[in-house]
Amino acid sequence: MFEFEIHTRDGRARTASFATPHGTVQTPMFMPVGTQGSVKGISPQELKDVGSQMILGNTYHLMLRPGPELVAAHGGLPGFTAYPGPFLTDSGGFQVMSLGHMRKITEEGVTFKSHLDGSKVILTPERSIEVQEALGADVIMAFDECPPFPAEPEYIRRSLERTVRWLERCQAARTRGDQALFAIVQGGVHPELRELSLEQTLPFATPGFAIGGLAVGEAKEQMFPAVAFTAERLPEDKPRYLMGVGHPEDLIAGIALGVDMFDCVYPTRTGRFGYALTDRGRLNMNSSAPRRQLEPIDPQCDCYACLHYTRAYLAHLVRAEEMLAPRMLSLHNLRYLHRLVERARAAIEQGRFAQWALAWAKQYFSADIPAWFLTAVTLGQDSQRSILPPS
Amino acid sequence: MFEFEIHTRDGRARTASFATPHGTVQTPMFMPVGTQGSVKGISPQELKDVGSQMILGNTYHLMLRPGPELVAAHGGLPGFTAYPGPFLTDSGGFQVMSLGHMRKITEEGVTFKSHLDGSKVILTPERSIEVQEALGADVIMAFDECPPFPAEPEYIRRSLERTVRWLERCQAARTRGDQALFAIVQGGVHPELRELSLEQTLPFATPGFAIGGLAVGEAKEQMFPAVAFTAERLPEDKPRYLMGVGHPEDLIAGIALGVDMFDCVYPTRTGRFGYALTDRGRLNMNSSAPRRQLEPIDPQCDCYACLHYTRAYLAHLVRAEEMLAPRMLSLHNLRYLHRLVERARAAIEQGRFAQWALAWAKQYFSADIPAWFLTAVTLGQDSQRSILPPS
Repeated sequence: MFEFEIHTRDGRARTASFATPHGTVQTPMFMPVGTQGSVKGISPQELKDVGSQMILGNTYHLMLRPGPELVAAHGGLPGFTAYPGPFLTDSGGFQVMSLGHMRKITEEGVTFKSHLDGSKVILTPERSIEVQEALGADVIMAFDECPPFPAEPEYIRRSLERTVRWLERCQAARTRGDQALFAIVQGGVHPELRELSLEQTLPFATPGFAIGGLAVGEAKEQMFPAVAFTAERLPEDKPRYLMGVGHPEDLIAGIALGVDMFDCVYPTRTGRFGYALTDRGRLNMNSSAPRRQLEPIDPQCDCYACLHYTRAYLAHLVRAEEMLAPRMLSLHNLRYLHRLVERARAAIEQGRFAQWALAWAKQYFSADIPAWFLTAVTLGQDSQRSILPPS
Repeated sequence: MFEFEIHTRDGRARTASFATPHGTVQTPMFMPVGTQGSVKGISPQELKDVGSQMILGNTYHLMLRPGPELVAAHGGLPGFTAYPGPFLTDSGGFQVMSLGHMRKITEEGVTFKSHLDGSKVILTPERSIEVQEALGADVIMAFDECPPFPAEPEYIRRSLERTVRWLERCQAARTRGDQALFAIVQGGVHPELRELSLEQTLPFATPGFAIGGLAVGEAKEQMFPAVAFTAERLPEDKPRYLMGVGHPEDLIAGIALGVDMFDCVYPTRTGRFGYALTDRGRLNMNSSAPRRQLEPIDPQCDCYACLHYTRAYLAHLVRAEEMLAPRMLSLHNLRYLHRLVERARAAIEQGRFAQWALAWAKQYFSADIPAWFLTAVTLGQDSQRSILPPS
């Protein structure tokens, strides 16, 4: 169980399979987010159809509503949501910070007021594990604090050390043996703090490690050096998960640097806002041009929307505020990201990942390819050298 | 083309098949409404899966946005919406009355301001046919006025006589031979006005006739006698379409009285509001009871929602305002109505329609079965006698 078997390496990028109780997934992999027990607007059958493997559930939301007991009464998230594959739940830590009101962090845990009804809730490492055991995901996350950006280095240091103590309590609190607990490495964009977090976290030897504390407002020029620094210091033989990251260009840069797992609300959220992802960038279906275009969003795409609908029809639905529009654009965007990662896996297996990534980027960035992207791809080809800018 | 072949009769109720260029449909039949070119939240594949046959499109909405030219550029509604089966379009008359601003009715047609942008639009019988030919439905409707309820009998008389003159202009304006134009009988709830409309309309010998001007606010005790009176005077060998009607009990009463076709936004609209149709009445998924119920909405139902989800999960989605909730409840409600009509067809074919209808009603109306329903079913068993209350 939870065997992580690397199939191919191409520089730092790798393809692997990761075995979980609800099925074996192929990495690199993008995980759609089902915050409240559904990937917004998408059915489980459609998730399978677009190539989703593991789905992310949010402990904070599900704990507040409908409550872990009800999910457990369904046999956990697969029974509740009718998605029969693997799940990952976050710890609730990040969501408490971003959504809870009047939150107070102590050594014990976090006290906050629910964003739903203002009731007082306490989340501790023990409670997070208890809830995640009830939700029954295959991969569960250690309860951590994700400091905001920017934050004082001294605050980040105290926070990450507390996160390590919380990790120890998470491990001690577990009662189920069929869930993989992943630790989360913090440290912001500071190499010395990342180093400190790694030193204290790696000894826990969890079956996977997450890179946390990024994609919280810092520039990509700051984020990817931190990803590079952290990823290359994580164990080679365990999955690496870059949390909350999911723009197409971020997936490719992350894969280049040896990341295996990603999650983000981006494909469904941007779909609801009327945007469609393509190899030539993001298509704004709210604009007037697509309203007369009789071709599909992407003739290369095999999603239901691209196989059945013209841009003109979908743009009409967007304009008319028809529910089918966010549904179909979310579906297409999920398929786009899954297909992108499938293409990345194929390129790695053929030993031409960097070449493929640069060709993709040439199309995707209509102007110049940004330096941070080139650096990530270039660095990914070199399995020895690492860089980080002065923080 | 447009052959209407009656298979079985059981009192006034009958089963038949109706051949159209985009496929043969089985009647009695309920038609989902795709006002703006999509049945809200439902894909064409799902329409097929739940047993939809013919889909209704609204000429008023599609004429204003995206415009008939764009739909025609897709080869009509089947190409535009990717639903490959038969369509029916209304004439725009009813929608102009209910949605247009500052409308003015003259012999020529109706002038109104668009509800979208306030621009002045003129809809005439000729324009309605022109737009409906561009939309390309298999069945198109004559341009009519549907008077409000209540209305003065003298107004209804003048209106229905104008509607007959408009019918003549509609027939004259046609340029396509592959669409069936249905005439609409008006007359409100007044037998003498229904009689007058029938006298003037039947000579046009259109391939089908609609019963219009009902379900606009009158009581069911007024509506169904008018349906009975009109339906029995329509040609036996042509489809009868009761416009805008679609509550479960209304379908059964209408079928009893010899109606073949129905349409209504009810299943999708009530689904968006959180209600699920069942044989025991309408289930309010906004209430607290379903939140703890681990059974499906309806264990007899074979829709995706009932095969995969508990009431508790769906009630959670409703409460959390997740898009999957209106989608799944709309899907279930469509399947419920289609299955109801399928059961009605089977009962007619077995010569036990009244018996089946009363058994269904006993479950559906938790209290007493209303008199208007009993009257419709009883009257439907007698192919001679007809009644109408004094109007």
